[in-house]
Amino acid sequence: MSKQPYQRTGEIAFSKIEKVNSELFTLTYGALVAQLMKDFDDVDQVNAQLEKMGYNIGQRLIDEFLAKSNITRCSDFKETAEIIAKVGFKMFLGVIADVANWNQEGTEFSLLLGDTPLTDFVELPENCSKLYYSNILSGVIRGSLEMVNMRVETKFVRCTLQGDDVSEIRVTLKEMLTDEYPDED
Amino acid sequence: MSKQPYQRTGEIAFSKIEKVNSELFTLTYGALVAQLMKDFDDVDQVNAQLEKMGYNIGQRLIDEFLAKSNITRCSDFKETAEIIAKVGFKMFLGVIADVANWNQEGTEFSLLLGDTPLTDFVELPENCSKLYYSNILSGVIRGSLEMVNMRVETKFVRCTLQGDDVSEIRVTLKEMLTDEYPDED
Repeated sequence: MSKQPYQRTGEIAFSKIEKVNSELFTLTYGALVAQLMKDFDDVDQVNAQLEKMGYNIGQRLIDEFLAKSNITRCSDFKETAEIIAKVGFKMFLGVIADVANWNQEGTEFSLLLGDTPLTDFVELPENCSKLYYSNILSGVIRGSLEMVNMRVETKFVRCTLQGDDVSEIRVTLKEMLTDEYPDED
Repeated sequence: MSKQPYQRTGEIAFSKIEKVNSELFTLTYGALVAQLMKDFDDVDQVNAQLEKMGYNIGQRLIDEFLAKSNITRCSDFKETAEIIAKVGFKMFLGVIADVANWNQEGTEFSLLLGDTPLTDFVELPENCSKLYYSNILSGVIRGSLEMVNMRVETKFVRCTLQGDDVSEIRVTLKEMLTDEYPDED
């Protein structure tokens, strides 16, 4: 099956959701990153903090995704990758990503991104050479997938704001979780 | 003239702009406010910081507003108020505000707001009783009006998250500025 159906699903989902102005979002996110750069001594900590914030956001966004995307389950991790790229990114940011660089086992892939509303017109000052400015996205992916029983690791490996051609987020499946129903007594 | 034309202008502008998912914006803004609550000792400082961030954002958003709203100038402060409420709020947040409580001199008014994408599903913890959660909006209004030569003071006086029926931002005109062209030698 081609990728087309997912693109169409993404477009329909994007048309259904509530929206705000993209530039307001860009500037608000910029204020958040700038605040963290003030708060923390080093860029690694800022990257980690952005990821953590994204993780919390992803755990909540998954509800919106399931409610509005018309997607109920993924048959495998390959399908998951396409749905993140073509439906998830479209639905939340209005852009799509490409899936590439699968490992042989089918447990690792990359999401390739051009400019997004996070990075529009952003230029990094000199002290940000190790900053993964959009690292909140790594967290959003990890947090939302965990809510649908996929424990993944996510990692920015390239970023257009650092001069790379594309931004690349590496996603590694660590474990398929099973639902647990703890005793409540 | 009725308010209708401005509402229509706002709707057209909103249809033309780039957009992102509203809930992603809500949660990102929430992460920003939560970070400031960690950073500062008291809520007054958080309110001030949000206003300052909004001021910087407003100084940049005004370009988007002028480019996409089809509005070139306001004949007076009353018209300015209606345009902020019906075009500006619609264009950036997808909601409109009401203008009320003019003073006799026509130099002060209130913007009345119901729920906005900033406050959707937000509940404040107990230590936030003096927080004006959406205070970034005060700053955005002040920053953007300054760029079109109106120096105003803005102040949150009521907030739905504090249990008030509506949120109210008081806007006071302090000075109409004139363009200055400093000598460059």
